Amino acid sequence: MKPTVTIEYCPKCGWMMRAAYMAQELLTTFTDDIYGVTLHPSEISGRYSVFIDEDIIFDRKKESRFPEIKELKQLVRDRVNPEKNLGHSDKK
Amino acid sequence: MKPTVTIEYCPKCGWMMRAAYMAQELLTTFTDDIYGVTLHPSEISGRYSVFIDEDIIFDRKKESRFPEIKELKQLVRDRVNPEKNLGHSDKK
Repeated sequence: MKPTVTIEYCPKCGWMMRAAYMAQELLTTFTDDIYGVTLHPSEISGRYSVFIDEDIIFDRKKESRFPEIKELKQLVRDRVNPEKNLGHSDKK
Repeated sequence: MKPTVTIEYCPKCGWMMRAAYMAQELLTTFTDDIYGVTLHPSEISGRYSVFIDEDIIFDRKKESRFPEIKELKQLVRDRVNPEKNLGHSDKK
């Protein structure tokens, strides 16, 4: 079974569209590498966390910021397909 | 555990944005009723199917069309919160 990415977001904070945008970026880049992306409205206020299966790979509370999309793709790539070249998203 | 809606779509057909749009409609309407919506790129060409947990509630091949959003909300509502009033999406 391919890994599932979950984006847990705070709906009351108005972060659904941000989460849906990031989901589409990941689905476009990792179409064949992942099972899919789950958008999960959080019951916890201020939450914006990204998981691969059960493992958290980004947490807004810990980082005090949202992930950049390039960074998020690198984090996902490193877990699901480390050999994959992300093109311009691979430069620092 | 609240139910998960899965939208399985054919990425080669260019249906990702359609699936992401429908996901956001469902997440807006059913924020507290569902665990989330999973966007799942299909390996089967032409597939556009919607599931609640393991149960299929809409299949493009069977219906020979895409679901209307009002119809999709009614199908989800009937499974996850039958008492819920969908407002203008409840009229035929």
